[in-house]
Amino acid sequence: MKRTMNEVHDSSCAVAATAELIATKWTPLIVHDLSEGPRRFMELEHSCRGISPRTLSERLDMLEQQGVVLRRSYPESPPRVEYELTEKGKALLPIIREMRRFGHRWLEDEPVALKPRRAAAAR
Amino acid sequence: MKRTMNEVHDSSCAVAATAELIATKWTPLIVHDLSEGPRRFMELEHSCRGISPRTLSERLDMLEQQGVVLRRSYPESPPRVEYELTEKGKALLPIIREMRRFGHRWLEDEPVALKPRRAAAAR
Repeated sequence: MKRTMNEVHDSSCAVAATAELIATKWTPLIVHDLSEGPRRFMELEHSCRGISPRTLSERLDMLEQQGVVLRRSYPESPPRVEYELTEKGKALLPIIREMRRFGHRWLEDEPVALKPRRAAAAR
Repeated sequence: MKRTMNEVHDSSCAVAATAELIATKWTPLIVHDLSEGPRRFMELEHSCRGISPRTLSERLDMLEQQGVVLRRSYPESPPRVEYELTEKGKALLPIIREMRRFGHRWLEDEPVALKPRRAAAAR
């Protein structure tokens, strides 16, 4: 029943590594928002409603470090900074598209199902 | 620049809800392992190498509560319990397949890139 390390690597490690990259809260939303083209910080802040500037900044730093997002700075006055997806970042989009499809099909009618049911249980 | 709640719901909530479901550590691996058919607890423990029995148990409970996994108990001696994917669970497989594809293409040659680089920075 045990697998060799190679088999584990082939089947699981790639999934686990991808999960580690994409699974942080907000990350899929940021990548999804950037799929429509370069965005400025404030635009992302608006479309990722509820995210704090600090968290957004941390996520963008992480995504830039991982080679998913490219940060472009334009020497204008005031300086303009835009974020866009790299090729690696664009390669995440099929995952996010499948996540959206799943969410619409299976989660849309039960948005509270993912929350703890303490309130209901206490009745 | 602001979106209406409906637009946010359409584009982001489905992705966010799916991320919340699938993004927990080990969850994609468990779902992936169950894609090959029903599995017993010990089989999952072996294939999810490194998971603690407690964590595996918690994940299976969560996945059962979310309608992703079905727990079947057979009245044998000793009792046999098997876990299998529901239709909803099988619908997660395209996401995991895309995650695996991405991981093989973009992460396989840089498995340490997702770890903090403190050791390197301290040199």
